[in-house]
Amino acid sequence: MQHKSFRNMPCPIARSLERVGEWWSMLIMRDALHGLTRFDEFQKSLGIAPNMLARRLTALVEAGLLERRRYSVRPPREEYRPTARGRDFRPVLIALLAFGNRHFAPEGASVTIMDAQTGAVAEPIIVDRVTGRPIREPEFVWVPGPAAGERTRQRYARRPQAAQEANLRTARNRSAT
Amino acid sequence: MQHKSFRNMPCPIARSLERVGEWWSMLIMRDALHGLTRFDEFQKSLGIAPNMLARRLTALVEAGLLERRRYSVRPPREEYRPTARGRDFRPVLIALLAFGNRHFAPEGASVTIMDAQTGAVAEPIIVDRVTGRPIREPEFVWVPGPAAGERTRQRYARRPQAAQEANLRTARNRSAT
Repeated sequence: MQHKSFRNMPCPIARSLERVGEWWSMLIMRDALHGLTRFDEFQKSLGIAPNMLARRLTALVEAGLLERRRYSVRPPREEYRPTARGRDFRPVLIALLAFGNRHFAPEGASVTIMDAQTGAVAEPIIVDRVTGRPIREPEFVWVPGPAAGERTRQRYARRPQAAQEANLRTARNRSAT
Repeated sequence: MQHKSFRNMPCPIARSLERVGEWWSMLIMRDALHGLTRFDEFQKSLGIAPNMLARRLTALVEAGLLERRRYSVRPPREEYRPTARGRDFRPVLIALLAFGNRHFAPEGASVTIMDAQTGAVAEPIIVDRVTGRPIREPEFVWVPGPAAGERTRQRYARRPQAAQEANLRTARNRSAT
């Protein structure tokens, strides 16, 4: 499959998608994070063509999300395990799971996340680690970071009304203190 | 591009990816959630081929994440705005942003999320809305939901050691209370 690379885009979403945005890649990460390690396990779980699976696994190894280890010399066999970076991808999968359960599971959830202590079904939301406040507009806004170039600054200069108003409030709050 | 559909998979991650997992789709949602509405705005922002952009926009409309509205009759022009479902996709983008900033921004973040009240840079993490506890293993485990079929139950019967132990603890806790 040929398509434009996102590699040269400074956006962190684009850069993540460059590594895990290919069709199949996120489902491979899902399975790897559930403990599947062997080629035939992934293949059986996903029903994916072997050449495609091999390409995707290699790309995930190159992106540093999976680690390839030879577990048998004769015959040569390799297994794939999530790296620390790969394990750090879990929040993306949790967000996709929550989104899918809310919008595309009319018959009810087929997979949920459970509080292991209480057995209650979890409701995943994204909060700021420091303050614990839910990250949503207009309380939180997307802004150019320290490494932003001119193009990124221009992109974020234009944003929805709510965010603009929040920014104005912020500016006023800051000048008032 | 032809590839296997995830539509018939019960997994909520697969079902989400079926709608937004195509190359470009998540970046289009990123831009739409930043207030871009017009075809030429998306095209300019992404550098995407017009026929590809048209296909992706139509797919996102069909999936219910964007709404198409005619804003000019002569010449005929349409704009695209996020629906409630489309706005609910934002947590996935935030998780991808955080992942990209942590792993693929050696020169520093080019985009961050800011607390509009304090101006502090947010650190997005996923917690359980009810208890506020961070969703991570082994405190939280992925389990088959009420609508899970046999295949899903089998898939989740095999999982990493930590999760299995957590499940055992849960079972013990439950039988103890």
